[in-house]
Amino acid sequence: MVSEEISTLRWVGDAATGVLRLIDQTRLPGESIEIECRDVPTVWEAIRSLQVRGAPAIGVAAAYGAVIGARSGGPVRDALAQAAATLRTSRPTAVNLFWALDRMEAAASSAGPEIDEKDLLDRLLEEARRIEAEDRAMCRAIGRHGADLVEPGQGVLTHCNAGGLATVDYGTALAVVFAAHERGTPFRVFADETRPLLQGARLTAWELARRGIPVTLICDSMAAQVMREGKIQLVVVGADRIAANGDVANKIGTYSVALLARAHGIPFYVAAPSSTFDLSLSDGSAIPIEQRDPREITHGFGRPTAPEGIDVYNPAFDVTPANLIAGIITEKGIIQPVEAATIRRFLG
Amino acid sequence: MVSEEISTLRWVGDAATGVLRLIDQTRLPGESIEIECRDVPTVWEAIRSLQVRGAPAIGVAAAYGAVIGARSGGPVRDALAQAAATLRTSRPTAVNLFWALDRMEAAASSAGPEIDEKDLLDRLLEEARRIEAEDRAMCRAIGRHGADLVEPGQGVLTHCNAGGLATVDYGTALAVVFAAHERGTPFRVFADETRPLLQGARLTAWELARRGIPVTLICDSMAAQVMREGKIQLVVVGADRIAANGDVANKIGTYSVALLARAHGIPFYVAAPSSTFDLSLSDGSAIPIEQRDPREITHGFGRPTAPEGIDVYNPAFDVTPANLIAGIITEKGIIQPVEAATIRRFLG
Repeated sequence: MVSEEISTLRWVGDAATGVLRLIDQTRLPGESIEIECRDVPTVWEAIRSLQVRGAPAIGVAAAYGAVIGARSGGPVRDALAQAAATLRTSRPTAVNLFWALDRMEAAASSAGPEIDEKDLLDRLLEEARRIEAEDRAMCRAIGRHGADLVEPGQGVLTHCNAGGLATVDYGTALAVVFAAHERGTPFRVFADETRPLLQGARLTAWELARRGIPVTLICDSMAAQVMREGKIQLVVVGADRIAANGDVANKIGTYSVALLARAHGIPFYVAAPSSTFDLSLSDGSAIPIEQRDPREITHGFGRPTAPEGIDVYNPAFDVTPANLIAGIITEKGIIQPVEAATIRRFLG
Repeated sequence: MVSEEISTLRWVGDAATGVLRLIDQTRLPGESIEIECRDVPTVWEAIRSLQVRGAPAIGVAAAYGAVIGARSGGPVRDALAQAAATLRTSRPTAVNLFWALDRMEAAASSAGPEIDEKDLLDRLLEEARRIEAEDRAMCRAIGRHGADLVEPGQGVLTHCNAGGLATVDYGTALAVVFAAHERGTPFRVFADETRPLLQGARLTAWELARRGIPVTLICDSMAAQVMREGKIQLVVVGADRIAANGDVANKIGTYSVALLARAHGIPFYVAAPSSTFDLSLSDGSAIPIEQRDPREITHGFGRPTAPEGIDVYNPAFDVTPANLIAGIITEKGIIQPVEAATIRRFLG
């Protein structure tokens, strides 16, 4: 749980009648409103519209969405296949979505042809719960491995939100700072606000402030200046997909931060569970980059902020080349140096 | 004039009763509303609140503000001194403000002690009109010198607004693209939206679209990605103050763009009139950097976008070191290489 009152997501009930409840992250921090998902289109829309976002959280939400879809009528396996196919179209970049749905289908396959439909549905819910539990454990392990990187008095820059709201709980990049904070290490986080949807301002700053961790909000364009002033000694971000050579797709602006960190001699780390790796892609050039609605940029704040009809480019992600990354903090330890051989060995 | 209907600013009437009219740039592009300034506090507030902004435009507005102040009661010279002292406190970074007010006071001094009050006021209005006329001419000359840099088919990135709205007319960085466009060179401008106040989205994109120049709006965090995709071959920005060694203070985010351009091998140019140089400062470290209200970041668009009470860092400017700058485009030609000796020779 992000806090005692707020969970990124939770399953309530049994396999036959239970529901997926999600905090609507588009309304945070102003409003804490839970959405109840009882059908696949609601889960699909929650993922597409970023009510639930963050690569690991998308994976878990999709797994529970697959349970909901599997009981929607007809043979469970057929309904599951259809639900998975639908959910795969919700967002293209975060590989955890595909990874979680593949696991759900594999669970159905491995159950054998003789299992009765109710038991199969129970197996699917078990598998989704397992994915959730693993996510919790992976985030804690990432925190343990990464916390050593944070030294007393440092400034830590992060981009977007790779916190408890991007996972079931605790986060990836923010797990590192949460764990360092729990050890009593004093430091300050600088949070890029992360245009266009301001996940840094709305979600990261909010998660940190609630935990009593000192945080300073900046605009994305200020990161270079803050680095130049000597306020940053470490950068940690999350990831949506990591290619076999260590190239990392993450929220747009991450590549910029990596270049700026390099220019200032500041180590740039990525924190992500092993489910974020896509070893089928030799490098980042093959990672599909989602293009989103121009209105996120021109109409994001409640009133138009640009001339009507203007051309807009709105890629949701960019790819940071492996050579800019000091290490990838996974639940199995820190992958260093970031290159194909080390990655294969770690994930092996 | 920015267009047939809209002027950045204009003086209407004679020295004794005339007024300064300004387009309220905080309302653009949604609304085109002119503000009428009849006293110094109104001019001061217009500058402070960015109703008029852009280093050259601030200078001209302050010059007319000095005329208004000079006739506000008591001896003209005393009233002028008081108005100038007040207007100097409106914003700290753009040196053109101080330069224009110094010129107004010098004009009063050079008029001699025997001049009658009405004639002195006329002389002051003449000086303000001269500053305005010189600004127009300087911008056209900057356009002529810079237009050769734009080659057919290029992508040109700019940050913030250094256009007709940042000057009396025609602009500095945008003068370069306006002049290239008038010569028939085809190209596309990528406009950083420029958080927190979105001068790129609201003003630059608007000025370019009105002139029929192809423009694509991006978030500041996307500049690196757009460069990596090979879409940018040239960067041109404005300046608020330039030190003797060529270090340039400009809108926050400019230093970031300069580093990203360097990382991608893209030439980074600054366009500014000679009134932007402050040769009293040996380098950029002595340029005062304005810190602005955190609410520009957290409450800029009609609804809060961050948790209440969060720490915010909001420097309005940064300093780009001379070694990242390919050239400074002035009304006298392009200063290249950007170093103290060349600058001294150019400004003679």
